[in-house]
Amino acid sequence: MLARNVGQPTPASILAASASDEWVTIAPDDLLVMELAPGADESAREVVIELLPPPFSQGWVENVRTLARAHWWDGTSVYRVVDNWVAQWGDGEDERADPKPLPERLNAVPESEYTVLRAAMAAAEANWAASTGSAGVATEDSGIPEFAPSSPYARTEYFFMGWPLAADDRATWPTHCYASVGVARDVAPDTGTGAELYAVIGHAPRQLDRNIAVVGRVIEGIEHLATLPRGTGEAGVYETRAGHTPIVSVRLASELPEARRPRFEYLASDSASFKRYTAVRGNRSDEFYAVPAGGVDVCNVQVPIRRVAAG
Amino acid sequence: MLARNVGQPTPASILAASASDEWVTIAPDDLLVMELAPGADESAREVVIELLPPPFSQGWVENVRTLARAHWWDGTSVYRVVDNWVAQWGDGEDERADPKPLPERLNAVPESEYTVLRAAMAAAEANWAASTGSAGVATEDSGIPEFAPSSPYARTEYFFMGWPLAADDRATWPTHCYASVGVARDVAPDTGTGAELYAVIGHAPRQLDRNIAVVGRVIEGIEHLATLPRGTGEAGVYETRAGHTPIVSVRLASELPEARRPRFEYLASDSASFKRYTAVRGNRSDEFYAVPAGGVDVCNVQVPIRRVAAG
Repeated sequence: MLARNVGQPTPASILAASASDEWVTIAPDDLLVMELAPGADESAREVVIELLPPPFSQGWVENVRTLARAHWWDGTSVYRVVDNWVAQWGDGEDERADPKPLPERLNAVPESEYTVLRAAMAAAEANWAASTGSAGVATEDSGIPEFAPSSPYARTEYFFMGWPLAADDRATWPTHCYASVGVARDVAPDTGTGAELYAVIGHAPRQLDRNIAVVGRVIEGIEHLATLPRGTGEAGVYETRAGHTPIVSVRLASELPEARRPRFEYLASDSASFKRYTAVRGNRSDEFYAVPAGGVDVCNVQVPIRRVAAG
Repeated sequence: MLARNVGQPTPASILAASASDEWVTIAPDDLLVMELAPGADESAREVVIELLPPPFSQGWVENVRTLARAHWWDGTSVYRVVDNWVAQWGDGEDERADPKPLPERLNAVPESEYTVLRAAMAAAEANWAASTGSAGVATEDSGIPEFAPSSPYARTEYFFMGWPLAADDRATWPTHCYASVGVARDVAPDTGTGAELYAVIGHAPRQLDRNIAVVGRVIEGIEHLATLPRGTGEAGVYETRAGHTPIVSVRLASELPEARRPRFEYLASDSASFKRYTAVRGNRSDEFYAVPAGGVDVCNVQVPIRRVAAG
């Protein structure tokens, strides 16, 4: 049989052809390095999380930085894992009689911070344009070419500063995709502190959008959470402490010695290569794909992020 | 803080209130039971797969039955696992110098069977209506209330006989969701035999729709595949045989002794409870959810399937 579409662009070929100035370095203060206890085979398990930039969920993101600087998560654990849902870590305070005391000065954040109003988004976009010299990112314009409005979850979905976002006429919010990290909480209107966090390990649970604070995403090592045994207790909490995965440490990359500091870049949302990349993600037409989908959902685009040598 | 929306319906409360005659028994000839070698802790690992009914991918589904009856998968293995993508099993023939001989009389299935033309769908719907006494399931009518057309992947998406489907003006096709099982293949126009299968273990890879044959879905035990270590060789294949997970046996439930035969039911797509369930999946408004999403994608609906006592 003769292969078809030989040599047609793929997501990988577009990334390989991208220019180095289309990639944006992620600041060390936006990177969280979580070291889990070694696996059964003694292999290291490091999970790297990128925190959301302003204007999104900044009260919670600041709490996460405060907790990391206090080394609060050291000695806590991953205590809940639910298949096609989340892996959750922290103190598991709900399950315990003696909750670990939280650092002082955590923000109490209201539900209104789940979304960012249009005016604040416009300011953030102007700010981005001024700081990068980019022509700016118009919400309607910057998204997934051609098929942006086709979502059951929002009027429009698009990318800004490397993040998948959703919007209606009033506000914009960060989306729950595979590997998104959010703030676990009790029933609403409790909004959580940021001490208990979860990462999505299944199909995008978009019903959580605007109901839970997204504070970032796992950009390396999500498999160390996704492969953990599923909990068999109530709501997927492990039935005994023996099931927990201990957390050795969680550090901001900015706190690590230079030599241990990981460095990552994302492909700029307003770059020509990102536009080509999303178009091909929505219309695969290479040796493997005979029928282009004609679209792609915001979580299936998978923003390109790469580790680079420390410099 | 006072909880809101106390007592509002949830997916669980709707299922609890459903009538027993809204559930449809899955035929033993449509169930595949895969027994993996025990885990590191000696625990049993059984994966149950439901095969797609007519008119979908029937050439491949028949091959899967033929392979199961030949006990062809016994002694093969899960040889490829890619995070947020698939776990794949079979003989891994591409990786080996001595492929395991296939049974005789496997169908060679053309790409055209990836989709079902409108006329064949209409016949299947009429057949369903006649056999169940149901008023039938009109494509435009049976789907997710209110928000069915909002998909980047299809003109419409809906449910029929318990399966999430997508359609354009010409044809209907089964969708790739979390836990979907498909036929692995080489580059197109190769369509695969059904001997090498994969299960989706991440966000719905809808770009595979119409490009690969969906033959079923894992309805129990997907965690035994989703928690496997990710392969580190090319395309996620394990670098050595030591990484493989051996498959002890794969059997059609109809071949098992009565006492070992699992029994499952799905909630009928044309039942009142299923309509209520999809509406609530798209508009969560209970103690936990303050802001209803206003919609849900076809893969996030998660068709209710339950194990029932053998009887």
